Amino acid sequence: MHSHRVLLLAHGSSDPRWCETFEKLASPSLAAIPDAAIAYMELSEPSLDAEVARAASEGVHKVTVLPLFLAAGRHLRQDVPAMLDKLSEEHGLSIELATPIGEHPLLGDAIRHIVEERLGA
Amino acid sequence: MHSHRVLLLAHGSSDPRWCETFEKLASPSLAAIPDAAIAYMELSEPSLDAEVARAASEGVHKVTVLPLFLAAGRHLRQDVPAMLDKLSEEHGLSIELATPIGEHPLLGDAIRHIVEERLGA
Repeated sequence: MHSHRVLLLAHGSSDPRWCETFEKLASPSLAAIPDAAIAYMELSEPSLDAEVARAASEGVHKVTVLPLFLAAGRHLRQDVPAMLDKLSEEHGLSIELATPIGEHPLLGDAIRHIVEERLGA
Repeated sequence: MHSHRVLLLAHGSSDPRWCETFEKLASPSLAAIPDAAIAYMELSEPSLDAEVARAASEGVHKVTVLPLFLAAGRHLRQDVPAMLDKLSEEHGLSIELATPIGEHPLLGDAIRHIVEERLGA
């Protein structure tokens, strides 16, 4: 049992194939980080609510929510912080919201490699 | 003048800071690829409609739309193809929709590096 849970937060989609792609994208991270799980903000399961509730029921004291989002817009600046405030109070644990992956310079370089390959450059 | 325009398609957001992050993310790709531009599906400018119209007015015959999306859900499977069919017919040019960056294995590895760094691992 770890006292620190990492939740890789994805948006969610009504299309189940979206989640399949996402699970593949997250799998290297999940394999590398102890006690990490995927959680979806909306439309897909497991929900952020369910994963925070599970963490609390397992005795976790601290949750870090790491958004697998390319950028922070309304969702990460308003909706998610409001959800986390409510969940933190409800379950009595500390929840930290990290900056989204898209704010890291490494991601722009990775995107360039992928775009060049896609275009056969 | 190139006859092939590459549009890096982003979702768009009501938050202007979202676009700033996105422009930074796309800048290595824009610097590396001749005749490429950003276009937004909704909420932000320049819109996909405006960028395809501009390409047509500049004599471009072929547009490749490369989605800077982590996964393909309803937007990339339904909304964007419908928009592109309409734009292709309206402007008389060929538009190809590439698979999103998130389906490339390199992105999962980049995400792992970023997640580990974010967590101080």
